[in-house]
Amino acid sequence: MNGAENLLETLTAAGLEVCFANPGTSEMHLVSAIGNSERMRPVLCLFEGVASGAADGYARMLDKPALTLLHLGSGFANSMANQHNAKRAHVPLVNMVGDHATYHLKYDAPLTSDVAGHARLVSDFVSVSDSADDLARAGAEAVQAAGRGAGRVATFIAPANHAWEPASKTFPALEPQGLDAVGEEALEAVAGSLGNGKNTALFLGGRALREDALDAAGRIAAATGARLMCEVFPARMQRGVGRVAPQRLPYFAEGALETLASVEQLILVGAAAPVAFFAYPGKPGWLAPEHCEILTLATVDEDAASALAAVADRVAAGAKAAVVPAAPELPAPTGPLTPVAIGQSVIRSMPDEAIVVDEAATCGLGIFPVTGQARRHDWLTLTGGAIGYGLPVALGAAIACPDRKVLALQADGSAMYTLQALWSLAREQADVTVVIMNNRSYAILNIELARVGAGQPTPRTLSMLDLSRPDLDFVALAQGMGVAATRATCAEEFDAQLAEAMATPGPRLIEAMVVQQMP
Amino acid sequence: MNGAENLLETLTAAGLEVCFANPGTSEMHLVSAIGNSERMRPVLCLFEGVASGAADGYARMLDKPALTLLHLGSGFANSMANQHNAKRAHVPLVNMVGDHATYHLKYDAPLTSDVAGHARLVSDFVSVSDSADDLARAGAEAVQAAGRGAGRVATFIAPANHAWEPASKTFPALEPQGLDAVGEEALEAVAGSLGNGKNTALFLGGRALREDALDAAGRIAAATGARLMCEVFPARMQRGVGRVAPQRLPYFAEGALETLASVEQLILVGAAAPVAFFAYPGKPGWLAPEHCEILTLATVDEDAASALAAVADRVAAGAKAAVVPAAPELPAPTGPLTPVAIGQSVIRSMPDEAIVVDEAATCGLGIFPVTGQARRHDWLTLTGGAIGYGLPVALGAAIACPDRKVLALQADGSAMYTLQALWSLAREQADVTVVIMNNRSYAILNIELARVGAGQPTPRTLSMLDLSRPDLDFVALAQGMGVAATRATCAEEFDAQLAEAMATPGPRLIEAMVVQQMP
Repeated sequence: MNGAENLLETLTAAGLEVCFANPGTSEMHLVSAIGNSERMRPVLCLFEGVASGAADGYARMLDKPALTLLHLGSGFANSMANQHNAKRAHVPLVNMVGDHATYHLKYDAPLTSDVAGHARLVSDFVSVSDSADDLARAGAEAVQAAGRGAGRVATFIAPANHAWEPASKTFPALEPQGLDAVGEEALEAVAGSLGNGKNTALFLGGRALREDALDAAGRIAAATGARLMCEVFPARMQRGVGRVAPQRLPYFAEGALETLASVEQLILVGAAAPVAFFAYPGKPGWLAPEHCEILTLATVDEDAASALAAVADRVAAGAKAAVVPAAPELPAPTGPLTPVAIGQSVIRSMPDEAIVVDEAATCGLGIFPVTGQARRHDWLTLTGGAIGYGLPVALGAAIACPDRKVLALQADGSAMYTLQALWSLAREQADVTVVIMNNRSYAILNIELARVGAGQPTPRTLSMLDLSRPDLDFVALAQGMGVAATRATCAEEFDAQLAEAMATPGPRLIEAMVVQQMP
Repeated sequence: MNGAENLLETLTAAGLEVCFANPGTSEMHLVSAIGNSERMRPVLCLFEGVASGAADGYARMLDKPALTLLHLGSGFANSMANQHNAKRAHVPLVNMVGDHATYHLKYDAPLTSDVAGHARLVSDFVSVSDSADDLARAGAEAVQAAGRGAGRVATFIAPANHAWEPASKTFPALEPQGLDAVGEEALEAVAGSLGNGKNTALFLGGRALREDALDAAGRIAAATGARLMCEVFPARMQRGVGRVAPQRLPYFAEGALETLASVEQLILVGAAAPVAFFAYPGKPGWLAPEHCEILTLATVDEDAASALAAVADRVAAGAKAAVVPAAPELPAPTGPLTPVAIGQSVIRSMPDEAIVVDEAATCGLGIFPVTGQARRHDWLTLTGGAIGYGLPVALGAAIACPDRKVLALQADGSAMYTLQALWSLAREQADVTVVIMNNRSYAILNIELARVGAGQPTPRTLSMLDLSRPDLDFVALAQGMGVAATRATCAEEFDAQLAEAMATPGPRLIEAMVVQQMP
């Protein structure tokens, strides 16, 4: 048995089952060990950012890590934008990164790089083996570290010779620590504050956006009059008919300030205090009102669901949460293909327990409010702001939940960052419908250009924000990667195409020629 | 005038003319300043790795830096693989990276990252402004640092508020240091060693592979019997009819060892001593024979051309270099589409002074030796081993040299890393012909799997190295990004399509369904 095979024993014993892989020469023994293991499913990705994003999507849906397999520092670099998003989503993720054989590093061969330095930028934990026998230890500790709290990005580095040299010392899987319990003091403080007559909002994020936690929050709201709000970009929010629906904080700071203006007491549950995504000249970055008191019921790493239930038991005995009522039967939308029309079609045809991956940028901000009355679903968003997360996360979510339909709502500009995910969707026959919102521009940047007060744009300025000349043809791009695709130019076409895609398993892409509306 | 506008004055005064841009919200004032400058041409790229690779290609052809514009740490991360290649190519490159407003960092907003930490991993120089007035200083110092020696990757970070706040203090362009002169001692030592009767090879790299330097090396070889070799992956090598042709060291270590076996004295000229690209179990990483003496005439940062000329004056007065003779007229190749057939078509139709960007991996190793008798051209290779360099470098080379035809020889697997470059080729109407070598696998990895002795592969193992299921359709992918494309399935079709592409300006893609041969 070599180090790689020994490692695979440990990783699979620790419960890892899927590896999103983009290997190179220095990982060949790891590839071989995965190929020989019956408990590890390899999913080849054509770009490392697909692998890391897919691992993020997988973890969001299962609360357990997938493995990635990456090639040296440069391969890791390609994965980093989606590692950043995974870190901000607080999911468990385990990266396995190859490196040159230890004795080869001194030659400074062309691909030599500071692999650990790359890893540390986006990982909470980094380990390196110091022998073939030690490789399983490095892997086991990374898996354990990934399971700290709600989840961590953990990376271990496998020098090529530690993978190929003989290993005899097995290493057991290590128990991860998982979510921390919320202490009695915090429960007491929050329960007490809920009766003090102040204008109060619960600000929900992380695991507090799962059905059980939302129900407890809904009971608290019903009994105390507290408002329910949630973070702008949740990792995973359960919503739809029959569920409690907190108000999502607006993305643009002006709207967020207005939403929060009357709040005197903000109780954080699995979320950080709200701040502006970007700074703008002369505008505040801290969004809560100046004299608003901020309490924390649960951090993102604490068990928010149990904490909310405990508080509900104290302050909301017998109360019943208000939930989203079933939608009236909607007629098929007609006319221009707007975000509202798209949302209506989603309500009409999206099946129960679907997973929506939203990277639709400006369009997504328009679709979200319209789809509150859709059937029960999970809504995933761009937690870290590094674009190119949507298609990879949809791949990972589909691998994690093969019995659920995945709907990826995807802006055109950001789709182009990790479009290679389409190929893996086709290869894995993942049950994902991708809707590309083609408005032929970085619409969000055109809005931001005006908002930051950068002056009158010249044609040269606008050329840096515009995706026309030439127009991207996403139907051709999808077909080029083996995904069946159609184009919808009006609401009627879109409604029919979405209905068909929702009723048919397997990968599918709809290019929606949207009429842009300001969110 | 704001900080961004003030900065642009300095950057353009320093000679920067082209900006490969992929901006976000925090760069809007930089975008606006570029849009307002008549001396800076913006080229929008749909992915950051395209921007950094294009800047590399631009610099290889002009020996001067282009500017990139990137968005925070995650945007920089996406550019890093090609930054690594640029660093290994020893080219000048200036990165301008936005960051949050300084006072916004404390909020740890979603996109907050250690921008300088990212930059340091691949940059030789990193500066950050400390005020709007100071931003031009940070930029000027980065441009100066990029011009150190043969070239450096230099990065400066522009916090958003330093771009938008008023600035009044202009900052002059700073003179870069450029190539160092080789000292008399090294010239004397090398000139002396050339007469000592030892089996000698000049090992050429960097600027020593330009026409003048090659001619001097050729004269030395003619007079002294020294062999001429060159590094495996040169940044830019001038070759073709009428030029001196050193022997390129084989990629696989076995071949390199054999090539170097009889050398007793290796004289480095703009190249580092040869080492294996990867380690393999039980094989050496150092490629020169054990007792081979290694001398350095010029480091990569020294003026190799002048040094070679000075040595030639001492040891080769009156000698004439052997150059590549004109090719006999070749008939059109027929039959299966092999790398040799592709090379023959290149000889037949590639115009004088073309630029070849080789990321054809296994196929490229086959095409290179066949094309030695092509018309004069520059051959660019993957210096750092981080795949996804070819299409971006072709874009940058075409922007740098609008009067020259660019031929990008591109493997299928690595094309998929930065395929977004096709869109910029179309937008800029760049005179680039892309040939995709479609063999439906990571062929190099199948070879490496056997070479590293990783055991008998299972179907699962091979699934991680194979690009079929589904087949990629590069004609559709190109059309999806606005590039006209055709497919060639035999040598006759390829020859006709290449001839047409070579004779027609503008972007074009040929998907070559190659029959794989082991190199």
